[in-house]
Amino acid sequence: MAGPSPVSPLAPDHFASLPAVPGIRLAAGAAGIRYPGRTDVMVIELAAGTAAAGVFTRSLTAAAPVRWDRQVIASGRARAVVVNSGNANAFTGADGERVVARTARVAADTLGCAAEEVLVASTGVVGELLPVERLVAVLPLLFDSVSGDAWADAAQAIMTTDTYPKAATRQVLIGGVPVTINGIAKGAGMIAPDMATMLAFLATDAALPPVLLQELLSEAVARSFNAITIDGDTSTNDTALLFATGAAAHPPVNTADDPRLEDFRTGLAQVAAELAQMIVRDGEGATRFVTITVTGAETDQAAKRLACTVANSPLVKTAIAGADPNWGRIVAALGRAGERIDADALTIRIGGTLVAAHGGPVPAYDEAPVAAHMQGRTIDIAIDAGIGFGAATVWTCDLTHGYIDINADYRS
Amino acid sequence: MAGPSPVSPLAPDHFASLPAVPGIRLAAGAAGIRYPGRTDVMVIELAAGTAAAGVFTRSLTAAAPVRWDRQVIASGRARAVVVNSGNANAFTGADGERVVARTARVAADTLGCAAEEVLVASTGVVGELLPVERLVAVLPLLFDSVSGDAWADAAQAIMTTDTYPKAATRQVLIGGVPVTINGIAKGAGMIAPDMATMLAFLATDAALPPVLLQELLSEAVARSFNAITIDGDTSTNDTALLFATGAAAHPPVNTADDPRLEDFRTGLAQVAAELAQMIVRDGEGATRFVTITVTGAETDQAAKRLACTVANSPLVKTAIAGADPNWGRIVAALGRAGERIDADALTIRIGGTLVAAHGGPVPAYDEAPVAAHMQGRTIDIAIDAGIGFGAATVWTCDLTHGYIDINADYRS
Repeated sequence: MAGPSPVSPLAPDHFASLPAVPGIRLAAGAAGIRYPGRTDVMVIELAAGTAAAGVFTRSLTAAAPVRWDRQVIASGRARAVVVNSGNANAFTGADGERVVARTARVAADTLGCAAEEVLVASTGVVGELLPVERLVAVLPLLFDSVSGDAWADAAQAIMTTDTYPKAATRQVLIGGVPVTINGIAKGAGMIAPDMATMLAFLATDAALPPVLLQELLSEAVARSFNAITIDGDTSTNDTALLFATGAAAHPPVNTADDPRLEDFRTGLAQVAAELAQMIVRDGEGATRFVTITVTGAETDQAAKRLACTVANSPLVKTAIAGADPNWGRIVAALGRAGERIDADALTIRIGGTLVAAHGGPVPAYDEAPVAAHMQGRTIDIAIDAGIGFGAATVWTCDLTHGYIDINADYRS
Repeated sequence: MAGPSPVSPLAPDHFASLPAVPGIRLAAGAAGIRYPGRTDVMVIELAAGTAAAGVFTRSLTAAAPVRWDRQVIASGRARAVVVNSGNANAFTGADGERVVARTARVAADTLGCAAEEVLVASTGVVGELLPVERLVAVLPLLFDSVSGDAWADAAQAIMTTDTYPKAATRQVLIGGVPVTINGIAKGAGMIAPDMATMLAFLATDAALPPVLLQELLSEAVARSFNAITIDGDTSTNDTALLFATGAAAHPPVNTADDPRLEDFRTGLAQVAAELAQMIVRDGEGATRFVTITVTGAETDQAAKRLACTVANSPLVKTAIAGADPNWGRIVAALGRAGERIDADALTIRIGGTLVAAHGGPVPAYDEAPVAAHMQGRTIDIAIDAGIGFGAATVWTCDLTHGYIDINADYRS
């Protein structure tokens, strides 16, 4: 293993300080899952009655913990989360199922709840059996040492190839009563040699029924964790969980269209988007953060597919790495996205400057501001497909030698 | 511009020597389209009565020459081809249409045919107007110097970032009468800074009606040029043309299921596959040639999509670059391909060795032959999806620092 990578040049300039969320306590420790002495386990204890929602990878080869968690989340309630790095427990067959069940069992026995109330998340190498006894050996001590102030430790503990911890928080009002929304996440490239996956854990002291919580989470994820792409690869373990402990004494809110939820919805969207953008900013080898906005598509879904095709194009990503305003590559990516566009009405703006319109380049556009924009850390590409009213925003990063360095290394 | 790149380590060890095809004459020259003194134009003169078929990019932002050629091919006949590099004449609006019309007009006047019998193909920078007068100025001299023996010159002339010329030939029998099938192609990464696109020109002296010719070409392209991927990017200009001059005196053959066509069909498939594989072997930065075979999918189409998702995965491609038999990344790619797989019945073989089966790794498989295979130039990955009888083979290459070097350079 190489030493720790230098912090991404796109890292935020400070780490958000997360307040406690009543009903949530966390702890982190080292179980030696893959490497001795490395922090590789994080646990969350959830107060009795906590509502739980989750969004998971759509992969057909989803890992054992994802399949377990889907069942837990279906009940809408959870009492604990056990997260490990170093081993994804993915493509591990029936043995992998037993590892998850055993982990949940030990956590449940420790806390005095049901195994079916324990969520499990794993990240790491695919196709190797997780040494579960090492994992469960540390659980009693960890659950004994949980604290409401351990968010920074927790964010640090779930890092794998991440070069900085990712955390975000908002205080919002529900019916005039303040509630907190905290989130931590890990990311970097997907299914990287030793570590994989996007994991996000969000928590609030709001009192929201599980069905409503799920609706709010799904909505937020669609415009955050599902609107980012580093290399187009989706992990077997991607997981975003949201917990609502109900400790806050706000008036009851039971439907998604309740206007008193607006501030919460906005805050949740912001926490999720901030974490998602931090993941992109820590993409393997990333040197530029890219926002791709598509408007004028047939539907929002079409807009997202167009934006993702541009975002995942190796030629667009390498052009951005080279500070090259090569909009021809953007046109080519749009043309193969499989969504309707009007080539004659299509417009492309880079850093706000219109570079292509009316089926061709904008005659004699001023290249100086575009060139200056491309040299920056933050690149904005705005596309109008000229067809309809569908819109979407996707965040990505450039494709550099750093990505190859990280991913073409020998696994062992 | 940097100097010429060293020849790909995956290049064939010799250049095929192409015989003349009665009815086909070619020539190459320099028009200064983008750089002075560089060979950038190639022309083909086709004997009167030549049948023509074509398969083109599916891009919705297809370049002007592609749109023109679709009309010509619809007639089933052609008398000439004009090919230029240095400028793709793509996303150039109405001006681009005029460039193509003018090119065809001058070629037609030179040869004494109709403009609608002239095919045009372009490769190069997108979104810049092609300096058509420079192009047409050289056409009379080029058409005056065409020769049946100029296949090697022609293959050389259409190279852009290609590091070696691509040519293949077969002699086959139709009803006992020998006919020749020649082909030349250019490839490398798609929409690269100065040059773009897969172009292939195939010709035979067989006498085949246009509808049948089109059927045979479409069939061959599906398993050759449409079964390769370097970076998943499709060009605005991709074009494969097949000409049949009818000079050979074989018995008439008019339907695709005529058994006398079997040898021709096999030969055409081989020429196309050989050229397609040469394109992959010259992929930007490629150091390993990868064959991905998927069986057991729901349909052939599903198999192809599964194979392409694996082939285009940056994580799979970088693992191959690093000689890492990281089949976990293959599992992850299969899981997100959007096609049915049976995770418990799925098998993965690398270099013939079974590494994954029954929903997990093969216990204690011998890693030595797999590691040795991964160190080679030619990598074989065989996947069975465990669902049905659909099968497909796709060829690709690894993703290396060389790709980034080539594509992250400044355009100008």
